[in-house]
Amino acid sequence: MSVAFSPPFPNPGCMSTTGYPPVTEQLAEPETTREEGRRKMDWALQHMPILESLREDFLAEKPLEGERVAMAMHVEAKTANLVELLADGGAEVTLTGCNPLSTHDDVSAALDAHEKITSYAVRGVDDEEYYEAIEATIGHDPTITVDDGGDLVFAIHEDYPELIDTIVGGCEETTTGVHRLRSMAEDGALEYPVFAVNDTPMKRLFDNVHGTGESSLATIAMTTNLSFAGKDIVVAGFGYCGKGVAKKASGQNANVIVAEVDSRKALEAHMEGYDVMPMSEAAEVGDVFITTTGNRDVIVEEHFRKMQDGVLLANAGHFDVEIDLVALEELAADHYEARDGVEAYEMPDGRRLNVLAEGRLVNLAAPLALGHPVEVMDQSFGVQAACVRELAENGDGYEPGVHEVPDDLDREIAEIKLEAEGVEFDTLSAEQEEYLSSWQHGT
Amino acid sequence: MSVAFSPPFPNPGCMSTTGYPPVTEQLAEPETTREEGRRKMDWALQHMPILESLREDFLAEKPLEGERVAMAMHVEAKTANLVELLADGGAEVTLTGCNPLSTHDDVSAALDAHEKITSYAVRGVDDEEYYEAIEATIGHDPTITVDDGGDLVFAIHEDYPELIDTIVGGCEETTTGVHRLRSMAEDGALEYPVFAVNDTPMKRLFDNVHGTGESSLATIAMTTNLSFAGKDIVVAGFGYCGKGVAKKASGQNANVIVAEVDSRKALEAHMEGYDVMPMSEAAEVGDVFITTTGNRDVIVEEHFRKMQDGVLLANAGHFDVEIDLVALEELAADHYEARDGVEAYEMPDGRRLNVLAEGRLVNLAAPLALGHPVEVMDQSFGVQAACVRELAENGDGYEPGVHEVPDDLDREIAEIKLEAEGVEFDTLSAEQEEYLSSWQHGT
Amino acid sequence: MSVAFSPPFPNPGCMSTTGYPPVTEQLAEPETTREEGRRKMDWALQHMPILESLREDFLAEKPLEGERVAMAMHVEAKTANLVELLADGGAEVTLTGCNPLSTHDDVSAALDAHEKITSYAVRGVDDEEYYEAIEATIGHDPTITVDDGGDLVFAIHEDYPELIDTIVGGCEETTTGVHRLRSMAEDGALEYPVFAVNDTPMKRLFDNVHGTGESSLATIAMTTNLSFAGKDIVVAGFGYCGKGVAKKASGQNANVIVAEVDSRKALEAHMEGYDVMPMSEAAEVGDVFITTTGNRDVIVEEHFRKMQDGVLLANAGHFDVEIDLVALEELAADHYEARDGVEAYEMPDGRRLNVLAEGRLVNLAAPLALGHPVEVMDQSFGVQAACVRELAENGDGYEPGVHEVPDDLDREIAEIKLEAEGVEFDTLSAEQEEYLSSWQHGT
Amino acid sequence: MSVAFSPPFPNPGCMSTTGYPPVTEQLAEPETTREEGRRKMDWALQHMPILESLREDFLAEKPLEGERVAMAMHVEAKTANLVELLADGGAEVTLTGCNPLSTHDDVSAALDAHEKITSYAVRGVDDEEYYEAIEATIGHDPTITVDDGGDLVFAIHEDYPELIDTIVGGCEETTTGVHRLRSMAEDGALEYPVFAVNDTPMKRLFDNVHGTGESSLATIAMTTNLSFAGKDIVVAGFGYCGKGVAKKASGQNANVIVAEVDSRKALEAHMEGYDVMPMSEAAEVGDVFITTTGNRDVIVEEHFRKMQDGVLLANAGHFDVEIDLVALEELAADHYEARDGVEAYEMPDGRRLNVLAEGRLVNLAAPLALGHPVEVMDQSFGVQAACVRELAENGDGYEPGVHEVPDDLDREIAEIKLEAEGVEFDTLSAEQEEYLSSWQHGT
Repeated sequence: MSVAFSPPFPNPGCMSTTGYPPVTEQLAEPETTREEGRRKMDWALQHMPILESLREDFLAEKPLEGERVAMAMHVEAKTANLVELLADGGAEVTLTGCNPLSTHDDVSAALDAHEKITSYAVRGVDDEEYYEAIEATIGHDPTITVDDGGDLVFAIHEDYPELIDTIVGGCEETTTGVHRLRSMAEDGALEYPVFAVNDTPMKRLFDNVHGTGESSLATIAMTTNLSFAGKDIVVAGFGYCGKGVAKKASGQNANVIVAEVDSRKALEAHMEGYDVMPMSEAAEVGDVFITTTGNRDVIVEEHFRKMQDGVLLANAGHFDVEIDLVALEELAADHYEARDGVEAYEMPDGRRLNVLAEGRLVNLAAPLALGHPVEVMDQSFGVQAACVRELAENGDGYEPGVHEVPDDLDREIAEIKLEAEGVEFDTLSAEQEEYLSSWQHGT
Repeated sequence: MSVAFSPPFPNPGCMSTTGYPPVTEQLAEPETTREEGRRKMDWALQHMPILESLREDFLAEKPLEGERVAMAMHVEAKTANLVELLADGGAEVTLTGCNPLSTHDDVSAALDAHEKITSYAVRGVDDEEYYEAIEATIGHDPTITVDDGGDLVFAIHEDYPELIDTIVGGCEETTTGVHRLRSMAEDGALEYPVFAVNDTPMKRLFDNVHGTGESSLATIAMTTNLSFAGKDIVVAGFGYCGKGVAKKASGQNANVIVAEVDSRKALEAHMEGYDVMPMSEAAEVGDVFITTTGNRDVIVEEHFRKMQDGVLLANAGHFDVEIDLVALEELAADHYEARDGVEAYEMPDGRRLNVLAEGRLVNLAAPLALGHPVEVMDQSFGVQAACVRELAENGDGYEPGVHEVPDDLDREIAEIKLEAEGVEFDTLSAEQEEYLSSWQHGT
Repeated sequence: MSVAFSPPFPNPGCMSTTGYPPVTEQLAEPETTREEGRRKMDWALQHMPILESLREDFLAEKPLEGERVAMAMHVEAKTANLVELLADGGAEVTLTGCNPLSTHDDVSAALDAHEKITSYAVRGVDDEEYYEAIEATIGHDPTITVDDGGDLVFAIHEDYPELIDTIVGGCEETTTGVHRLRSMAEDGALEYPVFAVNDTPMKRLFDNVHGTGESSLATIAMTTNLSFAGKDIVVAGFGYCGKGVAKKASGQNANVIVAEVDSRKALEAHMEGYDVMPMSEAAEVGDVFITTTGNRDVIVEEHFRKMQDGVLLANAGHFDVEIDLVALEELAADHYEARDGVEAYEMPDGRRLNVLAEGRLVNLAAPLALGHPVEVMDQSFGVQAACVRELAENGDGYEPGVHEVPDDLDREIAEIKLEAEGVEFDTLSAEQEEYLSSWQHGT
Repeated sequence: MSVAFSPPFPNPGCMSTTGYPPVTEQLAEPETTREEGRRKMDWALQHMPILESLREDFLAEKPLEGERVAMAMHVEAKTANLVELLADGGAEVTLTGCNPLSTHDDVSAALDAHEKITSYAVRGVDDEEYYEAIEATIGHDPTITVDDGGDLVFAIHEDYPELIDTIVGGCEETTTGVHRLRSMAEDGALEYPVFAVNDTPMKRLFDNVHGTGESSLATIAMTTNLSFAGKDIVVAGFGYCGKGVAKKASGQNANVIVAEVDSRKALEAHMEGYDVMPMSEAAEVGDVFITTTGNRDVIVEEHFRKMQDGVLLANAGHFDVEIDLVALEELAADHYEARDGVEAYEMPDGRRLNVLAEGRLVNLAAPLALGHPVEVMDQSFGVQAACVRELAENGDGYEPGVHEVPDDLDREIAEIKLEAEGVEFDTLSAEQEEYLSSWQHGT
């Protein structure tokens, strides 16, 4: 709903200093823009069977009736379908971006056109505007918060503590956000329950293994016009992301080399048939290096010194500290954009080391990167939606603090996905249940 | 040591009723036999780098000096190398079988020739002798017990409670044994600490995924003279064993179909690219059925009715209750041995359903089955040996009850394996450690 | 060389009517443009070890000294490195596009800056200019022609037959071109020898299996933001391209379904473990359809009628006749661009069938498509260069007509590639040679 | 038919010197034995859908009525079903072994019980008896010969040239036999047409890739009790067999290393993602070596000197000359049977190199080897049967000499297999046929 700002605003006190306008009022041609955004959302939704299925239920049951959900998210097509789902479930939704550059104005406008959604997200806002948009979002007096990095929770605890009383709980999507929330919780400072949506078994498997694996490699291929067959691909880290990258690279006929610091994971990689070696050795033979560790200094000066001409360096882990770009720049005689999304660092001896997407997450930060595949976000957002519903229905049952997603919610989403894909599975007979439980009795 | 029975016996009271002789005294030509057994052990040891590596340490450090270890195990070449390792570590070892049919007399005799080992295991003994052998083993007044099913622990608790005081602890290899021990512990009846060696991450991965996967399929291939390429292989259960069978079958160009009862595992199988369907559907299309569930009644009458002529039915799970052979026999017009290890059940309509190894674990019970691959047992026994050493060194620190294998022991074995394979891996720098811990701080 | 037009022109008669200027004279800022083009070429060359290796030889030996090579090619970075290689080998090279829309002006300008190259290729020329550029190219009185579709050969035979006498031969890159040349040859109308570079064993394997396989899937992924894990991917045709697509899709954890018309290929696909079924059945279950047959009407009305909502339809075969878009449009209630490169056809019942890249080769025609991976073109162009050298050195030995690439040239390129990758292989000893030949004697 | 020898004998002149009795007359308990053999045949036939399908046609149409087929084959269960098929097709069949040690007496007896079959094959005969059995087989005055090594053809041409006139033709199964026949043909000495059944596309693919690949690895696994996960498997040769072994080993999570002498095959292996290196390098890192070259001296002294302790050496190529056992024995300080089918060669420095099956084809010669999987032989024998029928029906159309199997016979077998497996495939429409032919017109 592209409302005028003040009237529907339930808590005018909060907003008195901002009067920050929704996206529709900020755009030149909201109508056209919004149509474009709607088309993007439609495309994604076509491939989000879980959200589709939940929408049917949400429309019929309105489980979020009476809730006011404040969201700070990357406002693009996939996320937008979650936003709309919550609105379709009966919630009043207010929305802002969680990063000034990740907002698609057209999608933001399309959302804002929904009668139960107000979007303040606009691309390219400055710091002040960014914060004003957060304030505006909070200003709707939310009962539930949905965060991607924790901005809403932090702003509320710091600047609007008076709202906490009426908030049943929140959801946090990211590792970083969960980490910050746990610190708060440890200090006794987190005053309402938040679900760590980040960390369910489904997310680890599908997002990390399949999502990161496929999208990282496809992004690298399309950013470089190179292929993987016969290449030596060095994967740093053999956690879920590393396993995904290794498996998919191997499935493209690459020769996978794994570098690890954990003996059991190293052995696991070895038993999979991969070459396992320290990075200092891998540096000499690799053609493509993909970091997935979540740690810093994974590829550093001593490695750069040994690498072959023409290698690719990409990060599929977390922050842009896995590849030591400071050291690389110092080492290099020159560097220049070799292709869109590829910075070539030319060593004094003429070797060129090519860094993709400035060492940031390649499947998010490369110029043509699309982020996680739609299906992956469908699962992730399915869990989000189930958590929001859980808060609406049973939020009172949760203590302040960080909570794991209840296992049955995660399973429910798995079941919805299977049904949407037409995949059937068995159920245990009473005899089998009993056999198992007699068996597991005591474990 | 093929000792005369009484003199070295430290606790004559226990043995007075039995006087049960060691294997060497029971065999006609112990010398020749023992040589044969030694050759079998040597073959295995060639491919047990972990035990080889531990042996060097054990010989040098004698960590088990002064311990008396009583063991009830499948006495064959692989196990024998564990037995000898413990003796080489300084322990007095007494040994019996854990199944009258799994003993290799030649291996038993080879062990008995070791000056610190007394083996009472003989193939084909009757029930009374079986128990006498256990008693004889216990009669050496053990300080540590090593079990494969719990026989020693139970016998000691029931019949020789006076020994418990001097026992520091035990190790249990099997799921079944651990299950029974946990029941005892729950009832407050387990009076010394026992390590559940069964359940370490390494065991799950290597034993279940690689070991069960490869050995089950190789045994099926060599029992039937059939190939897997282009076959529809139905894998019931997608736990570690099921994943292993599915992965290896797929690696032989089979078309894998997974039947599951757990939605997340079903989805996981689906996302791997396998067909997922209920067994009632899979029954109609499968060529080979392999159960890996650990449950009962996985393949039952309604499935038999639908199966194609010539299908193979094998169990790689646990007990022989996964395939309902009682129902199959009732349904069949006739059954006969179609090949060594293959019982063909002929349906009234002429279809033949072929059950391998009587529905018992195919990689253990088929006529030519060899059990788990040597390398898998190397890892499993490496953990055993590390646990026995832990008991000898720090046994006092453990309360009575069932204990997980300490994580660092499991890791140590992984490191030994990697070193033996010549695989190197990285270590975290101080900065990396700090980065990670600052990051994980609070989790 | 961005020469003035007439002076260096060796055959002014041909050109009198055109006076067509090289690209440099047509561009506004040739200097800047050319730098951009050079950077694109450099990127590609970094990953074209075969051309790099040949360049060293060509610079040292100048095997093409005295030759005038006329080329009609897609003028982009990869091709440009072939063009430059020929010039570095001593040839005077004149160049035009083989498609008005495939020229990159920056690359064209970068080439034109080379003192031995004149490029007439400019993007977006009209039909008349297109032909004038061909004429201008031919006007340099070539001794060798290098074609991508046969334009030069046809133009010369029709309009400049007087040049044929001094032409030693030509190379043709494409299937289509070779097909047309064979027809000419059959009619006795082809008056100089032309190598069918299209069809060597190396090209089939690397270009079709790895190149088409990887680039088609990466393009689909990045055009749609979808993943392949758990998807039913229907591959029509199990020739080299189909095998590549199937193998790589399976390596991304898709469930591959193959539709074939050849019984042996169908059986081969079945034995690989793929599902094999007629398209009429596959149409009902597929999520993604990729045609690779080189035939027409592979996916037609009866299939559209059965497909699920949201399916993707892409062509990785040859012409845009594999998917019957005429029928699809007639059947559809509506169609619209769902995403860049994706046309959604909405059926009257609401199902949406999404056609990628208008049914043209998806890895070439999608908006973000990059064509074949650099490494694949490296091999293809390596063979081209070797053929041009063969013509320069031994052209007289070939009769007019279409010739297979001599096997030793193809092997030479394989060896150069292996050396560049640091891969060593064995050689037969004299005894082994003899053993083999005694063995094969008579076969 | 266990006939008395002379009466039914159609050409007593031939036999006058031998009077060699059929197997039934040579065995102590033919009845029991024969039942055993029948069960073995039944097992195989259950998994030979091609022969099953052909049998229906043959029984109905009796295409071999009036023919007398002489066969020299490995007489075991799979072959026996071919023999019986020919008899069911109306032929009188006489049969002998093609190797004195490969005959299963029980199967031979089961065949001999068929009223149209006389089997002279008995296990363990001496040279003289072996030849007498061949003579006896030939003595039935064959119109068609079916050979596995060429014995019948040679015996007939040398000793019974008077029979040639009435022989329409023959089939030869093996590479060796075909090789010898081609030599004969070259010398103008082959006086009737023989089909080289050995070499069809189907046989290369299924027998070599899938059959050799799977059965070699399964045999190695079950002979050694070892697994492949994480092992370095060196495959010498990357022809069809090598590709099969590499692919299946990789599918068991081995790290595959390929040694090749052909640059294109080496490159192909490299592009598959395998490590490629000369044997001299591979020798240092391999855990298992499998030769598939068909050449001699593939693994020789210089390699033995470098190998690790405990390596396995196996041959899956052709003759036992691939591994130089003479050199190995000289080099070794000692050698002994480490396991059934494994000879350990102990180097002076203590390393043990383990040779499987005496360096002979491991999937045939190891103690528990079963030869090719049943399904593979089904295809091979399907082609055999189709060739015999072709000779019966159109033998006159073939000149003396060695003939390729007509392509349509090979395809027919593929179609029968697909039908038996329930796999359907598409057919070209008239428009598609035309499109393709217009396209390929001229090629």
